[in-house]
Amino acid sequence: MVRFVGVDAMIKLVRRTGLQPFLTGLCGAIESDFSRWQNFEKTPRIASHSSVGVIELMPTSDGDHYGFKYVNGHPKNMKEGLQTVTAFGVLSDVSTGYPILVSEMTLLTALRTAATSAMAAKHLARPDSRCMAIIGNGAQSEFQALAFAAITGIEQVRLYDIDRAASRKCAANLAGRGLDVVICPSAQDAVSGADIITTVTADKQYATILTDNMVGEGVHINAVGGDCPGKTELHRDILLRSRIFVEFTAQTRIEGEIQQLPENYPVTELWQVIAGTEAGRQSARDITLFDSVGFAIEDFSALNFVREQALSHGIYEELDLIADLHDPRNLFGVLGHGSAPFRGPQQPPEAA
Amino acid sequence: MVRFVGVDAMIKLVRRTGLQPFLTGLCGAIESDFSRWQNFEKTPRIASHSSVGVIELMPTSDGDHYGFKYVNGHPKNMKEGLQTVTAFGVLSDVSTGYPILVSEMTLLTALRTAATSAMAAKHLARPDSRCMAIIGNGAQSEFQALAFAAITGIEQVRLYDIDRAASRKCAANLAGRGLDVVICPSAQDAVSGADIITTVTADKQYATILTDNMVGEGVHINAVGGDCPGKTELHRDILLRSRIFVEFTAQTRIEGEIQQLPENYPVTELWQVIAGTEAGRQSARDITLFDSVGFAIEDFSALNFVREQALSHGIYEELDLIADLHDPRNLFGVLGHGSAPFRGPQQPPEAA
Repeated sequence: MVRFVGVDAMIKLVRRTGLQPFLTGLCGAIESDFSRWQNFEKTPRIASHSSVGVIELMPTSDGDHYGFKYVNGHPKNMKEGLQTVTAFGVLSDVSTGYPILVSEMTLLTALRTAATSAMAAKHLARPDSRCMAIIGNGAQSEFQALAFAAITGIEQVRLYDIDRAASRKCAANLAGRGLDVVICPSAQDAVSGADIITTVTADKQYATILTDNMVGEGVHINAVGGDCPGKTELHRDILLRSRIFVEFTAQTRIEGEIQQLPENYPVTELWQVIAGTEAGRQSARDITLFDSVGFAIEDFSALNFVREQALSHGIYEELDLIADLHDPRNLFGVLGHGSAPFRGPQQPPEAA
Repeated sequence: MVRFVGVDAMIKLVRRTGLQPFLTGLCGAIESDFSRWQNFEKTPRIASHSSVGVIELMPTSDGDHYGFKYVNGHPKNMKEGLQTVTAFGVLSDVSTGYPILVSEMTLLTALRTAATSAMAAKHLARPDSRCMAIIGNGAQSEFQALAFAAITGIEQVRLYDIDRAASRKCAANLAGRGLDVVICPSAQDAVSGADIITTVTADKQYATILTDNMVGEGVHINAVGGDCPGKTELHRDILLRSRIFVEFTAQTRIEGEIQQLPENYPVTELWQVIAGTEAGRQSARDITLFDSVGFAIEDFSALNFVREQALSHGIYEELDLIADLHDPRNLFGVLGHGSAPFRGPQQPPEAA
């Protein structure tokens, strides 16, 4: 049997652990995997494009476990009452090839994206950062706010969205969680006084959410929304003033903010900062930019973390996804009539 | 909710339909998709190799549906009481990116492989073929025998395996199904008088299951076991005497029997024969060879066929793999306390 963590189980797991401890644990799992980056097999995602969206597979392996995520991106879904992004993932044992976990990853992707953003900021933002602007207050915004509060000590969030209802939804969800939440009338107003600027808008097009004059010295920019070819959020001039950090350069050149820059423009991979082989922020006046697009290793870390949590709390179901045969040469035998054709899971030999 | 066909449901489906009608239906579904080959997105499989095996993802899409299969290959598993090959697959709606079916595919891969072999033979073997040799009597052998009986009218099967116990297992499984089954003392003996020769051995190495002198005029060879780099079953001289048919040339050059031949050696893609744009067998004296390695479109056809069968018989479960939100912008809301945080499936508005 293969363990299954569905949407309901994921909600239970997060509630049982507590959202912020869950985000902190997830951040630790991702950080630990980033620090051993070279152990991983790295492939660009495998995308299937249509006129209305994309379906992607994102595999990786560290030699012990293999993981992949299925994720779609359909901007027009929102108008139909469906989610833009849904996802699920699978973790397997490399030594046998058998899957060991199937998990929902719509919620988990939101959690791991926020945990990765906060992990990057822990290494790149000024340590005294307390105020974060969030431009774009859709599905990812609350996760970002709470991950930064838990992991980098953010105390105030300044919200802006072209749709005021989105900001109100975000503020309502964040109420009572110890954060000072301010809804701002403009992006300019939101970034004023912010130590960290998170951009996480959803339109699939080149946009300029931030212009150069809006970004002052010492700021850390967490650019989450520019994550596919043709979709960026920052004015090019901001990039030229920033020290740029990415997940996996080959993928970010195609999908990230740096698709606006020449192919040889220098960037640093975040794992190098975490492993201590490259510098992060070098002065309090640096502008640092985490050009985040999401990478398979983050999903791998998240699947492993969920598996540990699910096992330790006993929160999972079991799927008969893989036939378990008495005699593996006799696959045909499972179709046989008569007595039970295949062995149940964990059935003790003497059980009734 | 996403529909789920587990191992138990797949067994029930096959029993409900009957194994041979199921194989015939599957063959029709594959044939129909092969006849519209150019509608499909074709990618070589994405493989993750380790020292003991391989894990692969095989995606494809026809623009309406997207499907992929996860499959492993671990030859050493058998000694540990595990299966060499296990698999599962997912079918999605291209217009929304939402998955609509998760299915076991260990059994289904065995069924679709046999159905594809028999479909190829229907187009390539002499129409009067009644006797088939099966060299290699492992997990795939019974499926091959029954697919050929149902689809091409095979009446006698001649079994050979280096392990006599495997032949006995195969013969026992085929008993009472209207086939004349003969266990042979050698491969030479098995192929004697056979119209069709199926090779389906499992060793991951270059082997010579058939030598040139064993293959007479007019025979159709169904070469199933040579299916990855470094694994072949036929002597090169047989290939040089045969008209060779493949699934997807780019993949078969790497994985099939033709990895023994120069890269420009002429082969015909099977879909061209089915679509009527290329000739298959041209005379009763031709040796035809189907160099089968398995291709993503066969899995796609199989997933669609299973979905139809599962829906029409009501044999499936439901998985809460994808969060179903009242307000898709409010993913965070599913974590909320208080009233039911997410909408259940197919819940009528007035239900208690």
